[in-house]
Amino acid sequence: MKSIETYKEEFLVYLNEKVKVKEPLNLYEPIHYILQLGGKRLRPVLTLLTCDIFGGNEKLAYDAALAVEVFHNFTLIHDDIMDSAPIRRGKETVHKKWDENTGILSGDAMMILGNQCFESYDAPIFKELMILFNKTALEVCEGQQCDMDFETRNDVTITEYLKMITNKTSVLVAAAMKMGAIIAGASKDEAIKIYNFGLNLGIAFQLQDDYLDTFGDAAVFGKQIGGDILENKKTFLYLKALEMCSSKDAKKLIAIYNATTPNNNKVSEVTSLFVENKIPEVTINEIEKYSNKAFEVLETMSISSVKKEALKDFGLNLMKRTI
Amino acid sequence: MKSIETYKEEFLVYLNEKVKVKEPLNLYEPIHYILQLGGKRLRPVLTLLTCDIFGGNEKLAYDAALAVEVFHNFTLIHDDIMDSAPIRRGKETVHKKWDENTGILSGDAMMILGNQCFESYDAPIFKELMILFNKTALEVCEGQQCDMDFETRNDVTITEYLKMITNKTSVLVAAAMKMGAIIAGASKDEAIKIYNFGLNLGIAFQLQDDYLDTFGDAAVFGKQIGGDILENKKTFLYLKALEMCSSKDAKKLIAIYNATTPNNNKVSEVTSLFVENKIPEVTINEIEKYSNKAFEVLETMSISSVKKEALKDFGLNLMKRTI
Repeated sequence: MKSIETYKEEFLVYLNEKVKVKEPLNLYEPIHYILQLGGKRLRPVLTLLTCDIFGGNEKLAYDAALAVEVFHNFTLIHDDIMDSAPIRRGKETVHKKWDENTGILSGDAMMILGNQCFESYDAPIFKELMILFNKTALEVCEGQQCDMDFETRNDVTITEYLKMITNKTSVLVAAAMKMGAIIAGASKDEAIKIYNFGLNLGIAFQLQDDYLDTFGDAAVFGKQIGGDILENKKTFLYLKALEMCSSKDAKKLIAIYNATTPNNNKVSEVTSLFVENKIPEVTINEIEKYSNKAFEVLETMSISSVKKEALKDFGLNLMKRTI
Repeated sequence: MKSIETYKEEFLVYLNEKVKVKEPLNLYEPIHYILQLGGKRLRPVLTLLTCDIFGGNEKLAYDAALAVEVFHNFTLIHDDIMDSAPIRRGKETVHKKWDENTGILSGDAMMILGNQCFESYDAPIFKELMILFNKTALEVCEGQQCDMDFETRNDVTITEYLKMITNKTSVLVAAAMKMGAIIAGASKDEAIKIYNFGLNLGIAFQLQDDYLDTFGDAAVFGKQIGGDILENKKTFLYLKALEMCSSKDAKKLIAIYNATTPNNNKVSEVTSLFVENKIPEVTINEIEKYSNKAFEVLETMSISSVKKEALKDFGLNLMKRTI
């Protein structure tokens, strides 16, 4: 098995070959810009790795990997507009560097470019991949809509939250892996299992994102610590705190989130409330729960134990991440 | 051959069956709303008609027709955001009735829903339709980008303008027809010809849109007469006037368009300039030129003369429209 770093490097070579700026420049330059901004390249690496795991020709997986990465970056452009986010990966977001209209339209074009990546596959595989891709893409939109709906709701449950992050984040991780399996010609049963592995890993990954946003190391996290708190985001930490803490603390938490006057101590006050109510520990437990669910799925698969270990290592490393 | 009205009515029955509101409501209600707003349903009707023309089973063309209509309406939602347009078909635009974020996201979802419509086709046809659809969709984005770029440019040529409207409008009309041909199993040669018929008809259609915006009958046009002039749109009329009129009139026209102080007579002043320079006549000639190009393509086709007449009648009726 290749290292994750090797998959990533090889994928980036392919991406640079394929993604070129052309006319009209105002449409294609933002696309080139966001795709060059960096990032973990988690999803395309998973497509390549999974294809390899199932004994497929990794070269054949590049186009699906690229489709997934292009689609993911399209969602980032549109999400950043919806969130009015000025910074992405330490650089200006597309709608800040250009304008909102450019962000909307280059995002639209990216969704189409993502679809076009699949055109190199023979018709039956093409159709199978497109059906999975369309289903996944629509779920991502539904997840984003629920995320926006939650902003103005005060009765969001943990179950609803988990469903939202499953749609917004996990299904694309899961689909990225299943595509690798499909391209490698894995059995339907194995493809479903690797999808479920990815789905659970994706949930663990997103919960960890929530955790790091408040409890990460500012020096390495790359985003402002407490950003979710400043934006009144109803994260797992927040919802779990409301569920677990005393009614006095719950009232305090809600009051801090709903305050209309500026509060310079907002992040530290909310963080203290979380710590006092053992939210970090509970969140770490939840992350482990979903990681373990992923690893249990792995155990039922008919791939070699070396390959199972490779996937497990990948998951464990992902959970050890600090950024 | 069925009447255009019959194709439209049957298509609407299918659309109403297929497009249902579901959760999350804020994602799917705007989709339902725009698809129920009415409109000529020109593109889906052309898919059904063309399938019929080539002896195909019209029932099989419904999903492609729906895909084209859903995609077209997605572009309307995003274009209306980009143009800050408050009204579409006499009703509030999606981003006005809801908000911009809702418009962006429900538009995104519509593009995916459009793709999903093709999933009912067998893999080889599915792939052929998707390749055409992706290519067309990207051209539409390129056309929209050029349209936006033209707003801040003072050196747009008629050739560039025609290329822009070809991408923004005509390719989807052409692709709608070619899809009907593909589904009916027409030969590659005939499919290319019907595409070219649609492409030229689409250009004529868009030029007529420019014409009606200034010279249409306010009572029947459904939009404000002179809207393009008020928005300083570089339409065919405007660009042709600059090309044809005296340098004195050209300066006057540019001055009116670039004026920063309000001008209550703007529409009438520009319209007079157009009339004095015979722009209405030149535009009608240009519309006829592209209609005739479409009809010439028709003559080279190997379909029966009854079917040629049906397509020609459709084109002639389209050119006689007042709305």
